[in-house]
Amino acid sequence: MSDAPNDGFRDDEDGLDLERGDLTQVLKAVEAQDAQRVFELFDPLHPADIADILEQIGAETRRALVHLYGTEFDGDILSELDENIRDEVVGYLRPEVLAEAVRDMDSDDVVDLLEDLDESQHSAILDALEAPDRDAARQALSYPEYSAGRLMQREFVAVPEDWTVGQTIDMMRTAEDLPDQFYHVFLVTPQNLPTGYVTLGRLLSSKRETALLSILEDSFRSFDLDEEEGDVAYAFNQYHLISAPVVDTDGRLVGVITIDDAMAVLDEEHEEDMLRMAGAGEGSLSDGVIETTWQRLPWLGVNLLTAIIASLVIAIFETTIETLVALAVLMPIVASMGGNAGTQSMAVAVRGLATRDLTGANVWRVIRRETVVGFLNGMIFAVVMGAVGYVWFGSLMLAGVIAAAMVINLVVAGLSGIGLPALLDRLGVDPALASGTFVTTVTDVVGFFAFLGLATILLL
Amino acid sequence: MSDAPNDGFRDDEDGLDLERGDLTQVLKAVEAQDAQRVFELFDPLHPADIADILEQIGAETRRALVHLYGTEFDGDILSELDENIRDEVVGYLRPEVLAEAVRDMDSDDVVDLLEDLDESQHSAILDALEAPDRDAARQALSYPEYSAGRLMQREFVAVPEDWTVGQTIDMMRTAEDLPDQFYHVFLVTPQNLPTGYVTLGRLLSSKRETALLSILEDSFRSFDLDEEEGDVAYAFNQYHLISAPVVDTDGRLVGVITIDDAMAVLDEEHEEDMLRMAGAGEGSLSDGVIETTWQRLPWLGVNLLTAIIASLVIAIFETTIETLVALAVLMPIVASMGGNAGTQSMAVAVRGLATRDLTGANVWRVIRRETVVGFLNGMIFAVVMGAVGYVWFGSLMLAGVIAAAMVINLVVAGLSGIGLPALLDRLGVDPALASGTFVTTVTDVVGFFAFLGLATILLL
Repeated sequence: MSDAPNDGFRDDEDGLDLERGDLTQVLKAVEAQDAQRVFELFDPLHPADIADILEQIGAETRRALVHLYGTEFDGDILSELDENIRDEVVGYLRPEVLAEAVRDMDSDDVVDLLEDLDESQHSAILDALEAPDRDAARQALSYPEYSAGRLMQREFVAVPEDWTVGQTIDMMRTAEDLPDQFYHVFLVTPQNLPTGYVTLGRLLSSKRETALLSILEDSFRSFDLDEEEGDVAYAFNQYHLISAPVVDTDGRLVGVITIDDAMAVLDEEHEEDMLRMAGAGEGSLSDGVIETTWQRLPWLGVNLLTAIIASLVIAIFETTIETLVALAVLMPIVASMGGNAGTQSMAVAVRGLATRDLTGANVWRVIRRETVVGFLNGMIFAVVMGAVGYVWFGSLMLAGVIAAAMVINLVVAGLSGIGLPALLDRLGVDPALASGTFVTTVTDVVGFFAFLGLATILLL
Repeated sequence: MSDAPNDGFRDDEDGLDLERGDLTQVLKAVEAQDAQRVFELFDPLHPADIADILEQIGAETRRALVHLYGTEFDGDILSELDENIRDEVVGYLRPEVLAEAVRDMDSDDVVDLLEDLDESQHSAILDALEAPDRDAARQALSYPEYSAGRLMQREFVAVPEDWTVGQTIDMMRTAEDLPDQFYHVFLVTPQNLPTGYVTLGRLLSSKRETALLSILEDSFRSFDLDEEEGDVAYAFNQYHLISAPVVDTDGRLVGVITIDDAMAVLDEEHEEDMLRMAGAGEGSLSDGVIETTWQRLPWLGVNLLTAIIASLVIAIFETTIETLVALAVLMPIVASMGGNAGTQSMAVAVRGLATRDLTGANVWRVIRRETVVGFLNGMIFAVVMGAVGYVWFGSLMLAGVIAAAMVINLVVAGLSGIGLPALLDRLGVDPALASGTFVTTVTDVVGFFAFLGLATILLL
């Protein structure tokens, strides 16, 4: 990134190289208890970068660093921190620093902070707020988790719908509590029902006497308080929204959601999908050992069960294997190829469902495609693996058996890789939970059964 | 979503239910060759939704639908289409419709369209543009793929840095070619070097005589033309940018990147990570059978090789298995548990590297954590599987062997799940390419070797 002279982010030479994750300077300053040096290092940084540094160092260093940084610690850094670390850091802050930090924050960031904290820490935060902000925060917490009500901020600009551009500009020039960032002016009826919005660009480029109603944007969508945040984020992404109003059950304007909130939700959903597909729960890099062990345990437990099922299939054919031990050598290949092909199809399905590109309208076409692709790749690898098997064990029949099992398993892999997530989605379960585990169970069971079954019939 | 009266997106009752992917009405209209009905159905829809519909129907219906929609087909729909489908649809459009559509588009969308199309279709697009736009598009295509230069649009608002708010507003009221959407006014020197920016909100809320320099935003970052789009998107996400200037090698302002471009890049990167981790290449739901088969083939090939390696490990212990066939039954369990644990660690690593939360500063702490977590879960499942093994086969020694192998394999899984992606990243290779395949190779090989090796030593 090229940084202009007045850039606030430059990592200077004896400062930090954030891109390479080199925090030596910070660690030195902490070790030397050198608060002055910490100020020097942090001064040019964006709060998001300071938060990253706090996340990447160990807990003891973090505690010492927060103490050294003292009263400079502000609400922006707190907003940027990962929730585990934030919980911890809030505990390190002196009450007056915490109070000052919280008063600085936008209403949506305060709510975000509160919802992650233990109840016991709530009063410290709420007491720091002025009465109206405190009531607003309590109100926001009464909305369902992951709803538009939790996501929105209460700071927005709304004007009567019969105003002109000039009236609006005059109001804004005298208003004292405009939001830090805003992109639209909302038009409301006397009952506070939003009826449209004007972009600031249109406002600036129109004459003073222009009626706002004549420069409204064509399209306008609002969200309900209890709308799911995932649906909100989807709409922002799909319709390229920058900000959108939130209305209560009577249709009255109560808040606004901005693009950065929507981006944060999309980011979390991507993370969730990726970790769930891998059966890794909701883990984060800053979780501790015990927490992480517990997060991973349930899916490993499910995997143990499904692996035992696959073993039971093998056990059926124990005598076959005893007669021809080459089967034990080759059987994991069939299972592994099926698992890999199934995972490929599954990733496409989970992604398509998350972006809502895979719907009732095309699911059958995609299932058909995946099955045919499985068949074609099955044929290709049947030939390859048949040849390898023949060279290795010198048996044409054995080569034929592994080739046939390969085709069967890759067809089933394509079918289940797309079918299982689609089915879960239809049942209202997050398709990412179909994860590797279920798909590979199917391909393991089918792979072992097809290979060992065919071998029993044809080779003994 | 609650839709206000003048909403442009409502799916009415005899219209479409896009959320459920019910396109029956569209299919009926196409079958009846009823252009009027198509207009009715599409009229209330956002171009992004029309693009989704085109993506979800079959190729023949798509061709018929594009013909029916005729001259209504515009540049916005074209911009929203997935690149495969766009390629196809461009071929269906009459030259004059295509020309009209392209003239409507922002410069970054034209470039996006051109870069995906075959060279042979370029001239049709370029000829449609007016000379300056054509030169601009050619210029943009000369920048490296996936660079800031390709991503930026050339429409922006810049004013001399010594202007006042009043001068800026007066200019905007008379300017004829303001961008459709813009969020900042950039300040430039007489040499066209950007020195800062003012948000439209600040502009609107300041008095006419205010100097722009006195209401500059604190921080300001610009991007170089050849900066990678991934770095641009990261900065937008990390620093909550809405728009940012792009400068040439002399530091002159040449374009602007907006948040929607950055969001699109992030979205693509998430998709890439997910598909790469699963070894599914760069596939999309709209790819054909042959294309998809080829995309999947390389990773299946790699997987075949690695599966054969695992088989060679088993082959070493053929005589052991011949003596005790229970080993063949149990060995996939050890391998499967290792594969699952390794995939969990890997997903956390790939995600952490993508979001730049996993860096040199904390990689050793995370590797240590994953190894300890592997050990703890290994111990837990060693006890469980040891008990299952004892009950199943009645041998305490066999139970001890599978328990020991489980601990070894889960420790290795934790280590390689985080270590392999981190190593690839250090080597400058996309860590998502570490994918299931490599990690599970390690856990398969280690699992089979530990289990069968211990069995050979202890049980024979």
